[in-house]
Amino acid sequence: MRVPVELSKAYRVLNHGPVTLVTSAAGGRRNIMAASWAMPLDFSPPKVAVVIDANTYTRQLVDASGVFALNIPCRNLAQATLQAGSISGGAADKFAALGVSTFAAEKIEVPLVEGCVAWLECRVLAEPHNQERHDLFVAEVIHAQADDRVFSRGRWKFEDDGLRTLHYLAGGSFFVTGESLDVKIA
Amino acid sequence: MRVPVELSKAYRVLNHGPVTLVTSAAGGRRNIMAASWAMPLDFSPPKVAVVIDANTYTRQLVDASGVFALNIPCRNLAQATLQAGSISGGAADKFAALGVSTFAAEKIEVPLVEGCVAWLECRVLAEPHNQERHDLFVAEVIHAQADDRVFSRGRWKFEDDGLRTLHYLAGGSFFVTGESLDVKIA
Repeated sequence: MRVPVELSKAYRVLNHGPVTLVTSAAGGRRNIMAASWAMPLDFSPPKVAVVIDANTYTRQLVDASGVFALNIPCRNLAQATLQAGSISGGAADKFAALGVSTFAAEKIEVPLVEGCVAWLECRVLAEPHNQERHDLFVAEVIHAQADDRVFSRGRWKFEDDGLRTLHYLAGGSFFVTGESLDVKIA
Repeated sequence: MRVPVELSKAYRVLNHGPVTLVTSAAGGRRNIMAASWAMPLDFSPPKVAVVIDANTYTRQLVDASGVFALNIPCRNLAQATLQAGSISGGAADKFAALGVSTFAAEKIEVPLVEGCVAWLECRVLAEPHNQERHDLFVAEVIHAQADDRVFSRGRWKFEDDGLRTLHYLAGGSFFVTGESLDVKIA
């Protein structure tokens, strides 16, 4: 079940470094792309930093709308995630090409991806230097949700292998998030 | 064995989102801290983005020297990594407190951590806005090395569980990097 994530804990959705799917929409068009270069940037209000290349269709939509979502895919979506990072949107509807369904976000006019395990709705903070020089977008997370089978009370807990988050290497190679390890201060 | 990593493939050290240990030195002092908020920012020349809080001792040293290293710890160093993120450096030598040994970097005057599985030597690019507003440092990777038991030819390959990289959640909870998954474009 999708449940809201407290904003003060939203950074924990990204803290372990999973690959993300960036969704965007503007002027009746929408797109999805994969991004590994995404990380938390602040706790409260929660901010994220994500690289969105200037040559992508997503970039056009985000520049036009000032919003995007970070969807966190799981192992069940590995194929769609790879394809989202390999083909360009624009002419055709890339969601259909990937075979993914969407649902409406709460706070922004951007589709969220069904089957993902967490979703961060983000509003871009105007940072022309970062956007132009580094393709780096800084954004505030204004709403967060997660699938409570794997994320609840601010904690990821992976039991179903198909719902484990993904970490991308290169060339179609991912790692799934592995065993948990609880360490105490000595 | 420690082997150089081709700079064009240095981003792959960080691409899957592992926790890092930031080492620094200036004026005869040195420090180590943990940072999860680190990611690649460009391929060639390779750049990274990392958050170094203004209140840390590491920040003083990096501001003074303009260089730092990102060391990638593995499961065998989970305890030291948690402690590196929990205690502050300054008066005492934090490396000794953590029980970690160091060796000299190739291109910068910063200690690297023995037992880690990859090391990125970084030179800070002057970005006052990012440093002051977001505690965000953009740096060029000027040298990279890895333990060839787990990273070679631009690929991580985890066989020994103790050498798996770590992903941090919060409150002492880590995940190790799990199973690999090779996906082909449909």
